[in-house]
Amino acid sequence: MLRNTNMRWRLPLVCFLWEIAMIVLFGVFVRYDITADPHWADHMKKNNITSNIENDFYFRYPSFQDVHVMIFVGFGFLMTFLQRYGFGSVGFNFLLAAFGIQWALLMQGWFHAFDTGKITIGVQSLINADFCVGSVCIAFGAVLGKVSPVQLMIMTLFQVTLFAVNEWILLNKLHVNDAGGSMTIHTFGAYFGLTVTWILNRPNLKQRNDKEGSVYHSDLFSMIGTLYLWMYWPSFNSAISDHGDAQLRAAINTYCSLASCVLTTVAISSVVNKKGKLEMVHIQNATLAGGVAVGTAAEMMLSPYGSLIVGFICGIVSTLGFTYLSPILSSKLKLHDTCGIHNLHAMPGLIGGIVGAVTAACATEGVYTAEGLKKMFRFENEYASRTPSIQGGYQAAGICVSLAFGLVGGTVVGFILKLPFWGDPEDENCFDDVVYWELPHEEDEDNGHTFNQYVTHLPEELKHPEKNPA
Amino acid sequence: MLRNTNMRWRLPLVCFLWEIAMIVLFGVFVRYDITADPHWADHMKKNNITSNIENDFYFRYPSFQDVHVMIFVGFGFLMTFLQRYGFGSVGFNFLLAAFGIQWALLMQGWFHAFDTGKITIGVQSLINADFCVGSVCIAFGAVLGKVSPVQLMIMTLFQVTLFAVNEWILLNKLHVNDAGGSMTIHTFGAYFGLTVTWILNRPNLKQRNDKEGSVYHSDLFSMIGTLYLWMYWPSFNSAISDHGDAQLRAAINTYCSLASCVLTTVAISSVVNKKGKLEMVHIQNATLAGGVAVGTAAEMMLSPYGSLIVGFICGIVSTLGFTYLSPILSSKLKLHDTCGIHNLHAMPGLIGGIVGAVTAACATEGVYTAEGLKKMFRFENEYASRTPSIQGGYQAAGICVSLAFGLVGGTVVGFILKLPFWGDPEDENCFDDVVYWELPHEEDEDNGHTFNQYVTHLPEELKHPEKNPA
Amino acid sequence: MLRNTNMRWRLPLVCFLWEIAMIVLFGVFVRYDITADPHWADHMKKNNITSNIENDFYFRYPSFQDVHVMIFVGFGFLMTFLQRYGFGSVGFNFLLAAFGIQWALLMQGWFHAFDTGKITIGVQSLINADFCVGSVCIAFGAVLGKVSPVQLMIMTLFQVTLFAVNEWILLNKLHVNDAGGSMTIHTFGAYFGLTVTWILNRPNLKQRNDKEGSVYHSDLFSMIGTLYLWMYWPSFNSAISDHGDAQLRAAINTYCSLASCVLTTVAISSVVNKKGKLEMVHIQNATLAGGVAVGTAAEMMLSPYGSLIVGFICGIVSTLGFTYLSPILSSKLKLHDTCGIHNLHAMPGLIGGIVGAVTAACATEGVYTAEGLKKMFRFENEYASRTPSIQGGYQAAGICVSLAFGLVGGTVVGFILKLPFWGDPEDENCFDDVVYWELPHEEDEDNGHTFNQYVTHLPEELKHPEKNPA
Repeated sequence: MLRNTNMRWRLPLVCFLWEIAMIVLFGVFVRYDITADPHWADHMKKNNITSNIENDFYFRYPSFQDVHVMIFVGFGFLMTFLQRYGFGSVGFNFLLAAFGIQWALLMQGWFHAFDTGKITIGVQSLINADFCVGSVCIAFGAVLGKVSPVQLMIMTLFQVTLFAVNEWILLNKLHVNDAGGSMTIHTFGAYFGLTVTWILNRPNLKQRNDKEGSVYHSDLFSMIGTLYLWMYWPSFNSAISDHGDAQLRAAINTYCSLASCVLTTVAISSVVNKKGKLEMVHIQNATLAGGVAVGTAAEMMLSPYGSLIVGFICGIVSTLGFTYLSPILSSKLKLHDTCGIHNLHAMPGLIGGIVGAVTAACATEGVYTAEGLKKMFRFENEYASRTPSIQGGYQAAGICVSLAFGLVGGTVVGFILKLPFWGDPEDENCFDDVVYWELPHEEDEDNGHTFNQYVTHLPEELKHPEKNPA
Repeated sequence: MLRNTNMRWRLPLVCFLWEIAMIVLFGVFVRYDITADPHWADHMKKNNITSNIENDFYFRYPSFQDVHVMIFVGFGFLMTFLQRYGFGSVGFNFLLAAFGIQWALLMQGWFHAFDTGKITIGVQSLINADFCVGSVCIAFGAVLGKVSPVQLMIMTLFQVTLFAVNEWILLNKLHVNDAGGSMTIHTFGAYFGLTVTWILNRPNLKQRNDKEGSVYHSDLFSMIGTLYLWMYWPSFNSAISDHGDAQLRAAINTYCSLASCVLTTVAISSVVNKKGKLEMVHIQNATLAGGVAVGTAAEMMLSPYGSLIVGFICGIVSTLGFTYLSPILSSKLKLHDTCGIHNLHAMPGLIGGIVGAVTAACATEGVYTAEGLKKMFRFENEYASRTPSIQGGYQAAGICVSLAFGLVGGTVVGFILKLPFWGDPEDENCFDDVVYWELPHEEDEDNGHTFNQYVTHLPEELKHPEKNPA
Repeated sequence: MLRNTNMRWRLPLVCFLWEIAMIVLFGVFVRYDITADPHWADHMKKNNITSNIENDFYFRYPSFQDVHVMIFVGFGFLMTFLQRYGFGSVGFNFLLAAFGIQWALLMQGWFHAFDTGKITIGVQSLINADFCVGSVCIAFGAVLGKVSPVQLMIMTLFQVTLFAVNEWILLNKLHVNDAGGSMTIHTFGAYFGLTVTWILNRPNLKQRNDKEGSVYHSDLFSMIGTLYLWMYWPSFNSAISDHGDAQLRAAINTYCSLASCVLTTVAISSVVNKKGKLEMVHIQNATLAGGVAVGTAAEMMLSPYGSLIVGFICGIVSTLGFTYLSPILSSKLKLHDTCGIHNLHAMPGLIGGIVGAVTAACATEGVYTAEGLKKMFRFENEYASRTPSIQGGYQAAGICVSLAFGLVGGTVVGFILKLPFWGDPEDENCFDDVVYWELPHEEDEDNGHTFNQYVTHLPEELKHPEKNPA
């Protein structure tokens, strides 16, 4: 029996119901915070703020827009490398992110900004919502081409929820730092996605599907995604750091780590190929691992050369992962990871968590100043007695919690998505836009009819040569 | 008789003459405003401004650059969906916008910043010029593929002029708010373009031209335009709002409306298709309607859930428009609208005007604070006695004025463009870059010669099978 | 004997060695400057800085990100116009820029920020490193498709070094202004690249290589590069100008010059074509000449109409260069310049230097204010006695020095790159990604196998018609 992949009622129902739920919940809970409210003028007077430029908008909006581009163009186009799944890559990423940011505003609001019965949102809320959705985009990379849009909407609903809980535990209970989200975004997102795709296991997809490859132009489209992720990653890692030196430091560290990562990626890509040729998949992905791996430590005093070392290592690890580990995971563990997120997000995310823990543990008042150390790690109130080495321990605990959330959450959600009525494609239709998209007419021709178009002018016996005795 | 589409003397003449005119007029009229003049240092001292960061540049330049990307990449690439009109879409959009911003600096300067016999320009002038050109890009969408570059230059000249007059009436005479331009940019621009294309009616283009469709890769190029418009729209709607909370509020409202709009667009796109498949044209266009429709009210206290509702409605209206209304307009009214701007700009623009009028009419001192209300609607000098409900009435009048300017202006300009010597293409050459662009050599092969290339190796009687008795 | 283009050991070796060198040198020399250090808080107190917004990060980070996009997406995609060299264009540009920015941080640091035995880096350092790499990207345009990645890495090493020396002479010894780098970036970079390609002369490449052309989609990819360069050029020219009016003025002047340049480019492109058709190569390149040519004078009181005139002239010069001069250089001087950087960077760079010198020489206290004049041209300390006209002379000297550095440096580096063991491609493999990249499988089909795919269904005698008696 063929699965029913017709989305006609399922997808609209999900979209409508959830958007109506958003409207109701926003109506009940969501308000502007003081920086976006006309009472800002009063607030300025009360707090002796003399200029509108002190509004958080001007500290963070440019970074927000860069992050926004990373989520929608960066992740969306990075995944267009598949020759026949460009619409799905960009389009479904657009859909899940647009839903995800709304739900993230609510979930993160309830956990982090819910004092007076209302969620108040400002520019940081928008950035955090984008961050949260980033982890869903990562998980999407693992299941790319193998699930229906309804499954993606359901995955987004659950993953955003779990993200908010995990983030709350890390930031508020373990009291750790994770400015660029090595743990909360990358480790959690990647292991969540990997577990989901492992449970959705398609044993007959083992042999490489013809459509699961790139073509020349699709690889170029994908490079648009790569470059925007690479260029704006300094904004990503610095977007919610403290005003002033912390934001700039996070940007510098990320810039350095990413630059270094490109060179070792190219080196390994060349050395593992018999003819020394570069593989596009490495350039598209492994060059970004340096950004992932300074996610936690970027705002800390990692120092420029420390950042270079992190990038150096991650370029190697990630490229080797694509070359040697992914095939093993696929054949031995039956773990089919379309975009190789294990190499780009999972391993570098873990490395990033460890780098963060070590950097935190090594912090000293000499380097940070006494006040700076307190501010950096929020050693205040009940946490006033923490020392850097204890903080390092908690940071390490944060990695484990994120990993656990990813694995357990992914298992649960994986089984939900395995239910038979979500309309996922047959194995032979995976990685093909034709299942969920009305394709342009010409496309049929691309798939083999071009010749026939001309053949119509040929004499009858040549049109159907197979009927012709040779 | 074939029309002469050779641009050799007409296009250079227009470009040279108009650019020389720009130079002369700029020489006579345009100067830097105080924020871009070395006297800024004196100005700071006189006004007790203690830091250069108070220069308007730092409040608005990031938003300006986002708007700039929307005009040139956003609109330019959005229109590349046509399979053989990518050069024209991006290239002519580039040309008309580059001319339009210069002419807009002058026109808007004469109307808005012309106190001492000079036009003084600063960062807001650049943004406003881009805004003005935005309305021309919209109108270009209606006539895309059916006009010559000379016609576009002439249309730009007139439309920018009319835009400035209409904007002056709305902002200075009716004294209405329209931060994101639902009325001045979208309603005016769209109805202007629709009227022009209606008057340039090509009765024999009725049956769908083969070239008036997309191919797989052209749809992906178009998504670059869509995503940049979508992502940067919060910057667009907040770019010229008051410093501080108003700018941030405009960004938040637009972000919310756009997110909501994506979900209802997907829902309707799926439900109107028999197999539940999504149409790229909907995802490319209708997802943006939410940004258009909060153009007027974005800076007001629309509230986040209000924004979600606006986006919710516009996704539905716009997608239904593409599905049901456009075919009717085309067959009954002979209104051929290449990009469907009626669905993306005209209807959402009207909705945006209405939302703005209602939101203004509902404004209270409790919500805005007494001072905030005055500041938001500029209730000062001769307008000091206005109340929100009266303001709502004027806002509604603004919609009508913009609509009238679009219809009447479009009629006049349409008849000018109908004159027979502007070099527009034959019906069968519409939507084809070959008319105005030197195409790369390989392109000939794409158009049917690929087969012949191989056929040259075939025996003679097979090369011209039509001569061969079957 | 075929050259060995296998990069397997050479490229990894170069990447690893150089990245390790970077790590060691960064470890010894590079530290955060005060704006990125936790001691920033102390610095604020000492200097009565009341707000973090005064951190240079907030003045310059948005401009930095725009410049970053220009280097990686702008230059990278601009060069994808070649039909079979998209991977090399984007990928090698990515590689050389990622290495170059690290080496530039060191070189520029030693020359400009090396007071206490350490190089301290902040947001300006990142921008300057990107600027320096911009000159390498320009030179890459001249040799595009004809060199190996190892050669590019070596060229980058030397060119960045020479850039830093030249820049130091201009800024510190001649004490000239060059905010947007007409001299240091464009003149130096272009003549360096032209000399290198002239020395690497390939006499048998004279006749036009089939692959040295564009296809429809590659021209559209290239327009992504063009538009990002064009849109963000105002940020480029204003990125390191003084805070306040100078930054805004630089942005306005660049905006005006670029707008004007588009119109004359289109005019000339149409007039030089018999059928009046536009050439994509002109639109992709000559439209940018206006940005190059206001590089030096952008921050000065060039005035908006002055900027229009500069753009007007450069659009003409650059387009005429592509049409008439490039073929002559190629046939008479054996100068093969793949991207036409002579037209886009060399000539407009010289014009930019001259415009800068003239604008400086004409500066008066009336226009700049007495203080403003001193600040603009740093008439202080030993330079306190300089007058504008003397400054103009030094500016002119700066052009000559940059030109000399480009020519002499290019000669030396050209001969180094001519050594026979760097793995550059055979003439017939130039402009083809197949040499250094593992191409997607489908690509074979694109190169002529598509027909055979269908032909297998034809009777034997038609499969090999050439064997068939006609």
